[in-house]
Amino acid sequence: MTTRIVELRRGILKKNDELAAVLRQRYGAAGVLVLNLVSSPGTGKTAFLERTLRDLRAKGARVAALVGDLETDNDARRLAASGAPVRQINTHGICHLDADMIDKHLAGWEGVELGALDYLFIENVGNLVCPSSYDLGEGIRVALLSVTEGEDKPLKYPTLFNSADAAVITKMDIAEPCGFNRELALKNINEIRPGIRIFETSAKTGVGMDEWLEYLSAQRNR
Amino acid sequence: MTTRIVELRRGILKKNDELAAVLRQRYGAAGVLVLNLVSSPGTGKTAFLERTLRDLRAKGARVAALVGDLETDNDARRLAASGAPVRQINTHGICHLDADMIDKHLAGWEGVELGALDYLFIENVGNLVCPSSYDLGEGIRVALLSVTEGEDKPLKYPTLFNSADAAVITKMDIAEPCGFNRELALKNINEIRPGIRIFETSAKTGVGMDEWLEYLSAQRNR
Repeated sequence: MTTRIVELRRGILKKNDELAAVLRQRYGAAGVLVLNLVSSPGTGKTAFLERTLRDLRAKGARVAALVGDLETDNDARRLAASGAPVRQINTHGICHLDADMIDKHLAGWEGVELGALDYLFIENVGNLVCPSSYDLGEGIRVALLSVTEGEDKPLKYPTLFNSADAAVITKMDIAEPCGFNRELALKNINEIRPGIRIFETSAKTGVGMDEWLEYLSAQRNR
Repeated sequence: MTTRIVELRRGILKKNDELAAVLRQRYGAAGVLVLNLVSSPGTGKTAFLERTLRDLRAKGARVAALVGDLETDNDARRLAASGAPVRQINTHGICHLDADMIDKHLAGWEGVELGALDYLFIENVGNLVCPSSYDLGEGIRVALLSVTEGEDKPLKYPTLFNSADAAVITKMDIAEPCGFNRELALKNINEIRPGIRIFETSAKTGVGMDEWLEYLSAQRNR
């Protein structure tokens, strides 16, 4: 039975990769930079994204976000406070987003045209394992890690960090009470993905956000 | 293809449930209380478990632990500092433990006999989704949540909290700098699993540990 599951899983991933390639082409044609945000639940993806959307809008950028959760539309409601168009994807028990979910939710999204966007952010389901295997056609995959998690997360979840284009450390404002070992965290990220861009941020205080926004702008204009 | 996957998945879960039932019977016959600890990565399962093992040993209890991670034996080495026998299970990409992994690692565990233990702790892979579906034959399933995660985690990951026998809030020592809303967290846990026992703990300061150890002892002597 295990062999059959592995074969079927390969088939599903292959199908996903094919649709992701179509989406990637569509994003390119529309001139929109798409980012896929992946982390553990509780890392602060939503707070970081809310701040990013707000700061980008303040600079005149046209942004939107899709947000994945098993249940509830809490995150979509939080993100909508930024003023950007936001659409919730409820996976109802599935522990990751896939290309088909993105395709379907882009299709029926009233008032949002890819060609009219500069950036589209996709906040994945909180999970350090399964989302790594599902390409969403994104231009940039971002792995997030908070100062409250263990510094050895990159070593324990290598697939995500190894497939990421950028790493964001969140909640830097509470690094001290959490006893966060910055050097060790940076060393571990670099061990899994040498030379990856790492941003040390706080959505609360805004530290690190300028550097992050500059990076986004540079990536969009490549 | 999706229908076939669902059928195969059902088959796998059924097979897992059958083996879990055998394990449950074996634990019962050996008189050992088995606990399955599930949480997001970074909640502090290992720190909480290390403290639990140490405190139980100080009271003369016979304890051991199995610990699941995709890669590395970091957690087993941390837990071994408690003096208890600890065995690492590396899942190599699988995002949960299953009954078969437990069965195999119990079988080849040198120097550890179930009948000579009071408590066996199983630290699951850090993941709020998939471990909920895999019964390990445990007597008590514990859902852990740290003060650094969102208070709405129980609503967003209802399957885990709904199938848990006890909930443990970790890192209470940094509740204040994290802006943890205690009332909201308790309300949300109770909404998903009314009446569940909730422990508010800190592995660092030891707060809440007495209550937790009393609960363990009472459950063992039921």
